Amino acid sequence: MRDLPLSKVYQLIEPGPVVLLTTALKGRANVMTMSWHMMMDFEPPLLACIVSEANYSFAALRETGECVIAIPAVELALKVVKVGNSSGGDIDKFKTFDLTPAPADRVAAPLVVECYANLECRIIDTGFTDKYDLFVLEVLKAWIDPKQKNPRTIHHRGNGRFVVDGVTIKLKSKMR
Amino acid sequence: MRDLPLSKVYQLIEPGPVVLLTTALKGRANVMTMSWHMMMDFEPPLLACIVSEANYSFAALRETGECVIAIPAVELALKVVKVGNSSGGDIDKFKTFDLTPAPADRVAAPLVVECYANLECRIIDTGFTDKYDLFVLEVLKAWIDPKQKNPRTIHHRGNGRFVVDGVTIKLKSKMR
Repeated sequence: MRDLPLSKVYQLIEPGPVVLLTTALKGRANVMTMSWHMMMDFEPPLLACIVSEANYSFAALRETGECVIAIPAVELALKVVKVGNSSGGDIDKFKTFDLTPAPADRVAAPLVVECYANLECRIIDTGFTDKYDLFVLEVLKAWIDPKQKNPRTIHHRGNGRFVVDGVTIKLKSKMR
Repeated sequence: MRDLPLSKVYQLIEPGPVVLLTTALKGRANVMTMSWHMMMDFEPPLLACIVSEANYSFAALRETGECVIAIPAVELALKVVKVGNSSGGDIDKFKTFDLTPAPADRVAAPLVVECYANLECRIIDTGFTDKYDLFVLEVLKAWIDPKQKNPRTIHHRGNGRFVVDGVTIKLKSKMR
C-alpha cells in the first residue's frame, strides 16, 4: 500500500461505499461494517459516522478516540456481510473471516490489508455522540493499494441488498 | 408520485447518491446539488447533511428550517451537474434547467417532479451548523415515483466523475 494525499480522501468517501471500521482496545483488534458516514470537509479531511452504542466497537472507539476506516471492493462483499452479522464480543473477526490486520502509522487500530484503501482516523468532536451516536473524525493518514485497479465498491440498499459500482461517467462539473 | 413509508427512507439515502436539495424563501424556490449526507436514524428517519455557508441555499435553509431532498436517476445527471455549476443568486434554476417544482405537503420547499424520490425535511438540530455547516434533518414525508422502475443513481467521485449504479447483489445480511 502507498500513501494517498489527504486532499483526495473525499473521492473515496463521498460516493457512499460500505466500509469496515477497525478499533483496538488494550491490544485487542476488532472490525465492524458501517455505511452511515459522510464527508464534512476536504482538507484536513473530516468525516462523520454513526456507530450505535449497541455495537461492540462503540466502547473501543469512544475510549481510544481512534479508528481505521477501510474500504473494501466487491470481491470482499461476502466477508463484509459476515463481519456485519457478528459481534467482536463473541469472536475474533479478523481470524474467523480471514482478514489480515496490519499496523497503522498514526493510530493503534489496524489497517485491513485486503481493502483497497485505509484511512487512519482520530475522533476530534464528540459533541453529538451522546445524542446521536455521531463521531466527527479527522483522517490523519490515507493508504491506497495500487495493485487493486478500478475497485468497484458496494452500497447498501437495506436488507442485504447491495448495489455494485457500474460505469463511471465524466461530466463538466465545476465542483471539486 | 405516491407515499413511501418513512421506515424505508434509509434505503434511498444510505447508498450515497448525489441528491438535489430545494428550498423556498419568501416564495422564491431554489435548488442545489449535494452529496455530503448520511443517515442518522431509521424512524423517524434522521439524516445529516453539509450545506456550505458559501452556497446560496444556506440562508434559505437556515432561515426557513425546511428543505426537500430529491433523488435523481442517471437520466438527470447532466441537469444535476448544471444545477451544481450555477448559483440561485444569479438565475432561476428550475426555469433555466427545465426542472418542474411541485408543492410539497409539509414544507414550503418544492418537490422536483423529475426525481424518482422526494423527501420533505425539517431541520431539528443546528448544534453543529456554526462549526461544520452540518444540519440534522428529520424526514416528515417521503414520495416515490412508481413510474421510474429500477432507477440508477449516481455517486460523485470528484472533479465531475460519477459512478453509476451497476448490478444489485443480495447477501444474507442480518442488518436492516
